[in-house]
Amino acid sequence: MGLEMLNDNYKEGSKEPSKKENIPHIYSYQFCPYVERVHLVVAAKEINCETFNIDINSKPEWFFAKNPLGKVPALELDGGKILTESTIIAEYLDEAFEGKRKLQPKDAYEKCKQKIFYENFGSVFSGFYKIYRSKEDLNLLFATIENGLSLLEKELATRGTTFIGGNNDPLMVDYLIWPWLERLPAIISIIKKEKDWQKYLSSNLPLTVKYMQSMLDDSAVKKVAYSDDIHEEYFMFHIRLIRGDNF
Amino acid sequence: MGLEMLNDNYKEGSKEPSKKENIPHIYSYQFCPYVERVHLVVAAKEINCETFNIDINSKPEWFFAKNPLGKVPALELDGGKILTESTIIAEYLDEAFEGKRKLQPKDAYEKCKQKIFYENFGSVFSGFYKIYRSKEDLNLLFATIENGLSLLEKELATRGTTFIGGNNDPLMVDYLIWPWLERLPAIISIIKKEKDWQKYLSSNLPLTVKYMQSMLDDSAVKKVAYSDDIHEEYFMFHIRLIRGDNF
Repeated sequence: MGLEMLNDNYKEGSKEPSKKENIPHIYSYQFCPYVERVHLVVAAKEINCETFNIDINSKPEWFFAKNPLGKVPALELDGGKILTESTIIAEYLDEAFEGKRKLQPKDAYEKCKQKIFYENFGSVFSGFYKIYRSKEDLNLLFATIENGLSLLEKELATRGTTFIGGNNDPLMVDYLIWPWLERLPAIISIIKKEKDWQKYLSSNLPLTVKYMQSMLDDSAVKKVAYSDDIHEEYFMFHIRLIRGDNF
Repeated sequence: MGLEMLNDNYKEGSKEPSKKENIPHIYSYQFCPYVERVHLVVAAKEINCETFNIDINSKPEWFFAKNPLGKVPALELDGGKILTESTIIAEYLDEAFEGKRKLQPKDAYEKCKQKIFYENFGSVFSGFYKIYRSKEDLNLLFATIENGLSLLEKELATRGTTFIGGNNDPLMVDYLIWPWLERLPAIISIIKKEKDWQKYLSSNLPLTVKYMQSMLDDSAVKKVAYSDDIHEEYFMFHIRLIRGDNF
């Protein structure tokens, strides 16, 4: 399995698929970290829903008709109700569906603390895509990423728990930051030419390494995550498009 | 009353004030629209709390000790617990305090729809400060603002209610977008040289004008809002600092 999975996407001119009733529908793009946040929440809660992959470079007309800005992820509920923004969709799914478990703490203060963490973490990593969308120096881009990781290392040190959400299972906050961590091994391999991400990160970010190992053992992450090889293939394909074939 | 109110701010070197116990404390800056969001929520819910104004150009040392990034608004709870980010503080206050009334709808979907609206509206207006912090063309900056207002006009047309939150009272969504609307008359006066903002806006944005009139009649807005003259004085002071005395 590799990038050929992109061939299954709905494109300009595709007919709108028929949909099962009474379950939510997710409009997705396979390699988008924001979309992955929603899939992780769905997997952790074991919510029954349907996913449709959209070609983000050639979106089908029917998708714009229901979601004028054409954003993914989008969640469609009965009656054509649409929600966008990954954190808002994730919070909605946790509130509206009991599912296997609740992913936000009951305590309002702790819930907001976690929210501040994942919102800030999302901002720190919003430059991630520059690796394959800009010609900026890769080592400088990686320095920004390492700076963001130091925030995580500090948070893990302060909390002293296996996950940010506690010792038992990951909570919303863990799933909402995971997609960027999942892509780190591929990025370290490409930029730092180091295949062993644990070795690379362990001297400065030992708690982050342990955290990532625990997350990789979680059943929702196992179900949703792509392998390091697929991420590397995806990054390299796009890096070569923008930075040249000889990269 | 005018800009001299800024003299009451806590500055570098100021001693930390003693605080009342068992109520939340808000760290504030008088003319910040994000801070105003929090004050509107507090006023609408009639929450008992204390406000301390921080000089954002010379923040006191004790403020950084409790809030390392030095951001305002910040909310301090018992035990030195700190929350930041205006929308998160607002949502926390609504969840943790019953107060006079609840400001978010019970329905999870409608709650998320309103959240998407105020998050997007905040982004559209995040360029507002460029009016007095950059030298960019004022007419171009105003065109961006008008573009944001057209989203509000469309939302009001779709909903057909007095407030975005319904016909009775403003809800969270209304209070969280209000601070930028409150500053429109001053901005129209400065950039468009038109003292009558209702006249200026009425041809293209009639529902926005009616909405602003209803909001100005709300008791929380009445309690928190500054007058158009004070806003104009504040804008002009900063515009002259950056764009020159002859403006």
